[in-house]
Amino acid sequence: MLGQIPFGVADYFWEEALQRQELIAELLATFRRWGYGDVIPPAFEYATSLSAQASAGLQAEMYRFLDRDGKTLALRPEFTTPVARLVGTRLHDWPMPQRFCYAGSVFRYVDPQAGRQREFWQAGVELFGAASPDADAEVLALTAEAMAVAGLRDYRIVLGQIRYFSGLLAALDLTDAQSEALRWAIERKSEPALNDFLRDMPLGAGQRQAVEALPGLSGGDIQRVMDQAERHCLNGEMHRALVNLRAVVDAADGYDILNSVVLDLTEIRSLGYYTGISFEALAPESGFSIGSGGRYDDLVGHFGPAQPAVGVALGVDRLLLACQRQSGTPSTPQPTRPHALVLSAHNQAAMAQVQSWRAQGYRLQVEVNGRGLTDVLAYAARIGVGQVLAWETDRFLAYHPNADGLFVPSQGEISFDD
Amino acid sequence: MLGQIPFGVADYFWEEALQRQELIAELLATFRRWGYGDVIPPAFEYATSLSAQASAGLQAEMYRFLDRDGKTLALRPEFTTPVARLVGTRLHDWPMPQRFCYAGSVFRYVDPQAGRQREFWQAGVELFGAASPDADAEVLALTAEAMAVAGLRDYRIVLGQIRYFSGLLAALDLTDAQSEALRWAIERKSEPALNDFLRDMPLGAGQRQAVEALPGLSGGDIQRVMDQAERHCLNGEMHRALVNLRAVVDAADGYDILNSVVLDLTEIRSLGYYTGISFEALAPESGFSIGSGGRYDDLVGHFGPAQPAVGVALGVDRLLLACQRQSGTPSTPQPTRPHALVLSAHNQAAMAQVQSWRAQGYRLQVEVNGRGLTDVLAYAARIGVGQVLAWETDRFLAYHPNADGLFVPSQGEISFDD
Repeated sequence: MLGQIPFGVADYFWEEALQRQELIAELLATFRRWGYGDVIPPAFEYATSLSAQASAGLQAEMYRFLDRDGKTLALRPEFTTPVARLVGTRLHDWPMPQRFCYAGSVFRYVDPQAGRQREFWQAGVELFGAASPDADAEVLALTAEAMAVAGLRDYRIVLGQIRYFSGLLAALDLTDAQSEALRWAIERKSEPALNDFLRDMPLGAGQRQAVEALPGLSGGDIQRVMDQAERHCLNGEMHRALVNLRAVVDAADGYDILNSVVLDLTEIRSLGYYTGISFEALAPESGFSIGSGGRYDDLVGHFGPAQPAVGVALGVDRLLLACQRQSGTPSTPQPTRPHALVLSAHNQAAMAQVQSWRAQGYRLQVEVNGRGLTDVLAYAARIGVGQVLAWETDRFLAYHPNADGLFVPSQGEISFDD
Repeated sequence: MLGQIPFGVADYFWEEALQRQELIAELLATFRRWGYGDVIPPAFEYATSLSAQASAGLQAEMYRFLDRDGKTLALRPEFTTPVARLVGTRLHDWPMPQRFCYAGSVFRYVDPQAGRQREFWQAGVELFGAASPDADAEVLALTAEAMAVAGLRDYRIVLGQIRYFSGLLAALDLTDAQSEALRWAIERKSEPALNDFLRDMPLGAGQRQAVEALPGLSGGDIQRVMDQAERHCLNGEMHRALVNLRAVVDAADGYDILNSVVLDLTEIRSLGYYTGISFEALAPESGFSIGSGGRYDDLVGHFGPAQPAVGVALGVDRLLLACQRQSGTPSTPQPTRPHALVLSAHNQAAMAQVQSWRAQGYRLQVEVNGRGLTDVLAYAARIGVGQVLAWETDRFLAYHPNADGLFVPSQGEISFDD
């Protein structure tokens, strides 16, 4: 039927759309105060560029279409790759570090779920040209601040270091199939699968203990988790992963955010993309991920001179949903109410007064249906606007509802409720 | 080559991206103060919906692709049709009038030109459920205010009334081919084509005079143009078009915008879509259209109960370009400079101080490359930042460039230039 929209996309309007725009504006303002500069990549570009380091899953989810010259385009499924492309191709000669922030919609052919349509909004930052734990900590702290700015009272950052697991894989000297079996067991946090893996595997005692200990290497007691992990290091890579993690945690402590950080060395979903820390931002009550990020030192090199990089992408829709759930406010469609309705008379003095109120930030709707005062007062009552201003000869007279809800003329200065 | 982007799209970054985001935010804030509510339609939807009243030209410019269920989708080429669809299908039971504002990118397969890539940004408003000249005047006045808010010193609104021409066509009783010939001549403002048309045409004296007068019915002397047009009215439709235009002009005078309005009854490009006034917003010096709008009372009825409607869409890219040209500021890529660089020591007291400055709106970049004071001062000089803050035991010490451009420690309170 004409007028339906495709499954997986949505119209946002009234208060819901305003909240979304305001949240995006606040997130960008926050990122800018941390020294991040705006970037707006195209909504579509060559699919090959967007696929540079995309997982098979993400590649399958891209919306592809042909440009008229026969090249395959795709709608951006995320922002990190386009921004890395920009830095790699056009900005590599500028001083590092370079900080970028963005907000906009991304497109993935996925089954729609809470806070995740096929078009959904992301806001995030990318920090290029700094390989240090300080850079990682800055992005973690900015992630926490973004969630706080969004109004989330309760949030967690689950922090991992992918090199601990990739070091373990190296130390075990596994076949590809065996690596995959272990990865599968850890990623799914499946004890039976892990037992299957261990049963058939000829491992030394230290190797076996390291694998057995892995599922326990998570929790809010950061020092305990790191100390335990330390005891099972089998090679330099695992050790260096922990040294890095300790340094990141130390630097993050400078921002006083460790109360919100949980370590998890089984967080390995992004193996192959992230090259150091990786993390997920969660709103515990809402039961879904608000965003994710980490270090990806290998991406920019696809497009130009290699640069270390770390970043985070937050789901705007999920942030809004998590805030709604935490505050318990329902999301029923509601127009944004004006501060007043104005009944004027094509009069320059009247409109100049209206314009000066608007310049002060007040929302004023002028009557454009030719209705008289009685009808406008009835309309104001119907849509829940608490003030009607009617021009009388040379000034506005204000009408407000009395205790019975009937609009009556008011005396005194005109003012507006915020 | 990996890393190129398709012809017709662009990356925006640094100051250029910030200006774009700030302009969009200011335009939306302006629209909201006039009582317009936010709407965010999907970036793509069914091509049939987007084509409801699209001209053949616009239909040919749409980016189409297949959804995985075989239906044809298209990237939105403009916002008016999606918003009209929303009102027609979901909001027709809510009180009228309804006011909506939007900003976002649209997609057209066109030859890129100044301020018009294949992805370009529009911001605009739609006012539904009011057929009055007051509604038309409000949209005209808001168009003028939007251009002023954008910083344009000099702008024009070229205002037409499509019914004057469609009335003339009806009065001449032409074949389709003859109508098309006249339309072509007027639209192209081609005197030879108009003479060709007149030469072969058996017209009465009044009809001939009305056609001959048409090219002259434009100019900034609004009363003169309307009076002249009045003398050539051949039927009720032409007469009603002028009555409506006079009423719109009277209402617009209430907003004191007539200095910026030019009448043009030969403005007929949107015949078949607009049903009353139509207008174009121009920046005279820049030589291109900034935006266009008009009354379209027949669109919402494609999707639900019919509603009168009037709106405007402004080109954000062209607004930015016109402002640049008027102010003479070049558009060279420039990062947004932070107010200060911060050299701290993973110290909670230091970071708390940094965070409180950020909360006041200052942009502070924290050193994340492990550089010492000397290197950071050199870096600050290189990127043109005029203040470096270094944490010393229990407080920040500020460094500023002296007359020779060398950074030296400053005494006194730390402050930031805006």
